[in-house]
Amino acid sequence: MAQIIIYDTTLRDGTQAENFNLSLEDKIKICRELDSFGIDYIEGGWPGANPLSTAFFERMKGITLRHAQLAAFGSTRHAGNPPEQDVNLQALLAAKTPAITIFGKSWDIHVTDALRISLDKNLEIIEDSLAFLRPQVAHLFYDAEHFFDGFKANQDYALATLDRAVAGGAELLCLCETNGGTLPGELVEIIRTVQQHFADKGQEIPLGIHTHNDAECAVANSLMAVQTGAVMVQGTINGYGERCGNANLTSIIPALELKLGLHCNAGTRLHQLYDTTRLINELANLPHNRYQPYVGDAAFAHKAGVHVSAVLKNPMTYEHIDPEKVGNERHILISDQSGRSNILMKAERFGLQLRPDDPHMASIISELKNMETQGYQYEAAEASFELLMRRALGLRRKFFELEAFSVSDHKYSMNKEPLTEATIRLTVNKTEAHTASMGDGPVNAMDLALRKALTRFYPTLKDMKLVDYKVRVLTGQDGTASKVRVLIESSDETGRSWGTVGVSCNIIEASWQALVDSINFKLLQDEQAGKLSPAA
Amino acid sequence: MAQIIIYDTTLRDGTQAENFNLSLEDKIKICRELDSFGIDYIEGGWPGANPLSTAFFERMKGITLRHAQLAAFGSTRHAGNPPEQDVNLQALLAAKTPAITIFGKSWDIHVTDALRISLDKNLEIIEDSLAFLRPQVAHLFYDAEHFFDGFKANQDYALATLDRAVAGGAELLCLCETNGGTLPGELVEIIRTVQQHFADKGQEIPLGIHTHNDAECAVANSLMAVQTGAVMVQGTINGYGERCGNANLTSIIPALELKLGLHCNAGTRLHQLYDTTRLINELANLPHNRYQPYVGDAAFAHKAGVHVSAVLKNPMTYEHIDPEKVGNERHILISDQSGRSNILMKAERFGLQLRPDDPHMASIISELKNMETQGYQYEAAEASFELLMRRALGLRRKFFELEAFSVSDHKYSMNKEPLTEATIRLTVNKTEAHTASMGDGPVNAMDLALRKALTRFYPTLKDMKLVDYKVRVLTGQDGTASKVRVLIESSDETGRSWGTVGVSCNIIEASWQALVDSINFKLLQDEQAGKLSPAA
Repeated sequence: MAQIIIYDTTLRDGTQAENFNLSLEDKIKICRELDSFGIDYIEGGWPGANPLSTAFFERMKGITLRHAQLAAFGSTRHAGNPPEQDVNLQALLAAKTPAITIFGKSWDIHVTDALRISLDKNLEIIEDSLAFLRPQVAHLFYDAEHFFDGFKANQDYALATLDRAVAGGAELLCLCETNGGTLPGELVEIIRTVQQHFADKGQEIPLGIHTHNDAECAVANSLMAVQTGAVMVQGTINGYGERCGNANLTSIIPALELKLGLHCNAGTRLHQLYDTTRLINELANLPHNRYQPYVGDAAFAHKAGVHVSAVLKNPMTYEHIDPEKVGNERHILISDQSGRSNILMKAERFGLQLRPDDPHMASIISELKNMETQGYQYEAAEASFELLMRRALGLRRKFFELEAFSVSDHKYSMNKEPLTEATIRLTVNKTEAHTASMGDGPVNAMDLALRKALTRFYPTLKDMKLVDYKVRVLTGQDGTASKVRVLIESSDETGRSWGTVGVSCNIIEASWQALVDSINFKLLQDEQAGKLSPAA
Repeated sequence: MAQIIIYDTTLRDGTQAENFNLSLEDKIKICRELDSFGIDYIEGGWPGANPLSTAFFERMKGITLRHAQLAAFGSTRHAGNPPEQDVNLQALLAAKTPAITIFGKSWDIHVTDALRISLDKNLEIIEDSLAFLRPQVAHLFYDAEHFFDGFKANQDYALATLDRAVAGGAELLCLCETNGGTLPGELVEIIRTVQQHFADKGQEIPLGIHTHNDAECAVANSLMAVQTGAVMVQGTINGYGERCGNANLTSIIPALELKLGLHCNAGTRLHQLYDTTRLINELANLPHNRYQPYVGDAAFAHKAGVHVSAVLKNPMTYEHIDPEKVGNERHILISDQSGRSNILMKAERFGLQLRPDDPHMASIISELKNMETQGYQYEAAEASFELLMRRALGLRRKFFELEAFSVSDHKYSMNKEPLTEATIRLTVNKTEAHTASMGDGPVNAMDLALRKALTRFYPTLKDMKLVDYKVRVLTGQDGTASKVRVLIESSDETGRSWGTVGVSCNIIEASWQALVDSINFKLLQDEQAGKLSPAA
């Protein structure tokens, strides 16, 4: 069966989406996740065009990927520079990636109006930019920007740009539906014409497809292109991208594997799809789309009645695929088998004794459901989930007792930042600590005061630090009275990091919960490692 | 050119969506809106199956529609009843609609496993249910449920059900892709086989298409079906529907009209599309999808500087259609990549005098860059950007002076939520207001105290409310000392909404900035509209 190459551009084109912003650390984490999911190429950014991309490629030089190959993206050379002196091309090479993808103009009006150069000059630029890079990189791809619109406007010219990309040494031509307005019927016809163009010349050039969702056809267009012979699909996880988004790989990968009888490497890890898509949402601090095909919580939800009994008898009657194949689950009987097996898997990871028939299982499931109903989510807060399981198993360990805390902000002028102070009173083995701290904001002050109070009992806490803090407003009522979910990521001197969660209408309370979980988790780990001082 | 029939089922299949709930009054309003938009058939519900549908059809008997014809939806008769004694069929007739749509089983396993009757009995039921209704209604349509899955499982049987529907008097056969898993290529082949089946018998039967979005292909499937010869498209506004939704008419109608050279009656009122889709969201109390094709606020949003100048020169270069054709508009995103042309366009929108050679231009650009460096972003905070421009142009209007505020949280037990109080002292024209408020959290308390203090001077503030509050931690240093960006969306009694932004290391300060901008913007608008009381 045919093998389709999946080329992910979440880290580059995906970040063109209005609300999809990633830090350097987020980008590294996503890159590792995409690699573990089995993506073939990961386009990391446009080095030279923005400092974050350059920093990303720099960091990636020290990181080995298991399967994926990193790609750097950039434009053909500037008209005024010879290739060997072009800053953009130099930046691409400096990224030292196994793959480089160069985009060039296919649409004549973009050449004359945007680049303001002659049509011939653009052809020359395409060919010599690629030819310059060709000997210096393992894989060289050409993205034909606006190819379909260019083809409709001036077919001969659009095809000529492809010819010159081939002459320059491109090993694959990716046809880009940049404006997202072409419908599947027309798209297929254009691809066929391109194939015929090369067949007439006796050339066999692999084609790729890159689409956008402006006509709500990006997934269908990508799949139709593959059925027409394209061997590479470019897209983003969850369809993030400019305007209405890029082609959604989350829907394309399972369709290739489960419906079209085609294969891609990520198809062998399809059960990981659900977790991968959610992790990326969490890192970007964006909500999951309940209604998203394949991975949405509503995608296999069945309302009561005929559907439910039919589904239980024969799921295929109301489900287009088995939800477990993509790591999702049927939502009728909540937390049935798959819920249990998930919990057993986690318990094993945490080193907790738990058998499938354990009487504690029911209380863990019910506590989990209770928390989830309140808005807690544990995908990015596994440390909080371990603490929840320990509580349910009667293994809770109380390292301190809170007596009281207060946090206050005072602002005395429109032009000055408020002053923030936190006070805290707690006891450890009946010994009281009562202290206070200023901070850059209420959460910072609270964090500093809490550690100040505890470090004298638990000196290892000084090695711990907060590395990330995320706040999400949960949907609900009017703005400021909504619930907020706080996710905190902490790490310590061992290099490990752990996530905790808190939920409340009050951001101070939600942050407090996540902070306390984080500290408790650290102390628990240190206790198990025999690192807690005897004084504690 | 061919005329396509648009059959809307927002009020029936759309309400199967998890969060899409409508009252009777909502349904009436939506029905009137769909009529004014030019929809051909409006499926109002399943009379008999639920009381709301029955009440809806009762109410509609007193309402005349301009263009649309109302359709009642129901199943074939129960196996145990002769048609004339079947409660469901009687309820359909009692609705007294110009159209009735009957659905029947196409998939053999549904007949034997769900209905638990013989395959022959099902054929008989389809034919005699339709034959009974035929003389009593102006338009009679047949929905072939699960047609595509049924066809794949047992082609002969699926085709036999269609034959019997035709024999019973159906004037159109709507092929339903009920589980949403069929991809466009296969869908087209199956429709062609159906057409050939009737052609072989010398029959010409109009076909319709009804799809679901489980494979993210519902729009493409509908359009491909039309290109293959289907003359009716069933779908819902904004794609509301069970699981991942129904085919989205909001994307299908403009594609027919603007891209396929086909016509539908609603196509003549395409400029109303944006308002129609938003009204339906508002009635269902659901947020608009920013990224929705054609009607989303991001659908014609442009970020990069190069894009913007190209778009201004020739919009077609980065837009697949003219946004005004569907009642939407171009959004130029303010970002660090933006230049003068963006700012000029914004100024024009804000009604501010600004020429390209204006000496203030430099100060606006430098202030914008300064703010963006600090972490402000104005994509979703246009009101804050208007205030920034007014400041740079010397048009700042100070509605109040802050003297001081304080916010404090006190927690006295691990198990209790903190108590939150805000105090505020400010002056309006030298008159002091000093007040306090409790809240669900620090931002809520501050918001309540601020309004409490100001409303006595500016009574219109009582009509304003916060509709969304977002917090994002900006990348940077260690967790809790990082900067946060707060985005607030507010709206008032006019229905307009506006976004504001604040940035600080302190979430209280960032929220304060966004709150103050929001209030200043509201007061500015009211002042321009002559709504501020003379006391102010």
